[in-house]
Amino acid sequence: MLLNLPRSVTIREESPRDGLQNERAVLPTETKVALINALLETGVPRINLTSFVHPQWVPQLADAADVLMQINRVEDVSYSVLIPNARGLERALEVKAMGAKVNEVNFVLSATESHNKSNVNKTIAQSLSELPSLIQRARQSGLRVYVTISMSFGCAFEGVVSIERVMKIAKEVHAMGTEEIDFGDTAGMANPRQVYDFFMKAREVLLGVELTARFHDTRGLGLVNVLSAMQAGVTSFDSSLAGLGGCPFSPGATGNICTEDLVNMLHEMGVHTGIDLNRMTECAGMAQRTFGRPLASQILKAGPPKWASVEKR
Amino acid sequence: MLLNLPRSVTIREESPRDGLQNERAVLPTETKVALINALLETGVPRINLTSFVHPQWVPQLADAADVLMQINRVEDVSYSVLIPNARGLERALEVKAMGAKVNEVNFVLSATESHNKSNVNKTIAQSLSELPSLIQRARQSGLRVYVTISMSFGCAFEGVVSIERVMKIAKEVHAMGTEEIDFGDTAGMANPRQVYDFFMKAREVLLGVELTARFHDTRGLGLVNVLSAMQAGVTSFDSSLAGLGGCPFSPGATGNICTEDLVNMLHEMGVHTGIDLNRMTECAGMAQRTFGRPLASQILKAGPPKWASVEKR
Repeated sequence: MLLNLPRSVTIREESPRDGLQNERAVLPTETKVALINALLETGVPRINLTSFVHPQWVPQLADAADVLMQINRVEDVSYSVLIPNARGLERALEVKAMGAKVNEVNFVLSATESHNKSNVNKTIAQSLSELPSLIQRARQSGLRVYVTISMSFGCAFEGVVSIERVMKIAKEVHAMGTEEIDFGDTAGMANPRQVYDFFMKAREVLLGVELTARFHDTRGLGLVNVLSAMQAGVTSFDSSLAGLGGCPFSPGATGNICTEDLVNMLHEMGVHTGIDLNRMTECAGMAQRTFGRPLASQILKAGPPKWASVEKR
Repeated sequence: MLLNLPRSVTIREESPRDGLQNERAVLPTETKVALINALLETGVPRINLTSFVHPQWVPQLADAADVLMQINRVEDVSYSVLIPNARGLERALEVKAMGAKVNEVNFVLSATESHNKSNVNKTIAQSLSELPSLIQRARQSGLRVYVTISMSFGCAFEGVVSIERVMKIAKEVHAMGTEEIDFGDTAGMANPRQVYDFFMKAREVLLGVELTARFHDTRGLGLVNVLSAMQAGVTSFDSSLAGLGGCPFSPGATGNICTEDLVNMLHEMGVHTGIDLNRMTECAGMAQRTFGRPLASQILKAGPPKWASVEKR
């Protein structure tokens, strides 16, 4: 028996979208642009930048178009935006036509009716029926598509969510032609045993599609779940600078796993990420000064390790 | 490939000793007794209660004898105390002769000269030369012995610590007749890959002795290291209520892994501990009220999961 560690993993930085969306404070556009530009220099390969949800629902991201137009265009970084519906997709395409860099779009639905209702005010069947035309339109416009299935490991409203229930939805999404399916532990209910079983099953039934894990650290199991997902062959993870974010509809839910803590764990194990941990930690410090409160980052508290950084070897 | 999960693990609660020792505040004896009595009712199988270090060095535990005399004697719980030297052992034996319950003694040395010097003001060779007579005397008095090797996974002063260096010390300790060797990540530098390699090696060279892991959560890797240690066959862990404790000589080091977070992880995976998570969480709340600041417990923040507790099934 051996630990199953990949040579490298792909991290998607979620703080500009999921992080800022869940903060009370609405940051000025220039503050966001500065933070994103700093993140774009960390070596992170993918970044989720904003959302084209109606500003009435998410005022924090009302400046989506301005942010996209003003940030630097850095080569080799994949820029994504969250799209709630056809109108949002058209807005994103307009901004792209004006010269903004957008490589990927992210569509979202939930594994449970209660959360899908709360989050997007639709039944799962409605969400699934709208997806094919959205995916088709996005792909015809040259955009890569990833679909997030929230509450994949348990639901704040409905409790236990079976693997079968999620796989049924995921198989439908897969058949629509998405490049990547992203499984969210939105309520922070996943445990390592479940994660292992989940992804072993997912790899069996979802062939030829990238499988991404998006863990929350609600009960401190975020990084353990990453290790477990890697045992099951997963090499793609979402995370958020300084643990920013969460889910406004999940009572008690705290943020996504912290990017710099994740990067530190991976580098210490010799797993490459392409990310400069010191630069990422500087970004976390920037975010902490911006919000003016201690954020959920162990690396910010303890500092990056001084003894070694495998990534630099 | 499968996750290697044991049916059950043995947890030793360290907060009364390692937790309280590292707090600035010196708690009244009656407050300690109340906390320990509550911990004794959680189902935790082992508890490290106090230390017979000279009160000049650790005033927080100056009332060791009073605490041992006043706490309840609960059957099926193993009571241990930390012993720094021959004088400390005699004091412990006196208290035991007066009717206190003491089942185990804990001797400590470090894997690095710098930390051993800082912690016990001896060279490693001096520590090793004193151990045999201490172990013999303890065992002749009917006490079980466990020896903790601090800085087993890295040193705050010396950086990287090789597995070979630790195994050399551990083999000497093993030959002296200890029942258990406890490897401490005192500086919080262990990573899951290292932990796996470490314990695979330890199981190979240290036959017939219980191997315990004692992780710190300095950079958020405490629970991940537990999962990794279980992959390598370890089933014995030290932890501390609400993450209390740390090491006064390790700059930046935060506490031991949090008992209730560990118990939650294990129960969610179906691994038995014998501990009642709700009662343990109540103890953590008690500790938090005592110290009057938020402690490092995710379960205290988020609450024990409502959906299930495998331990209760």
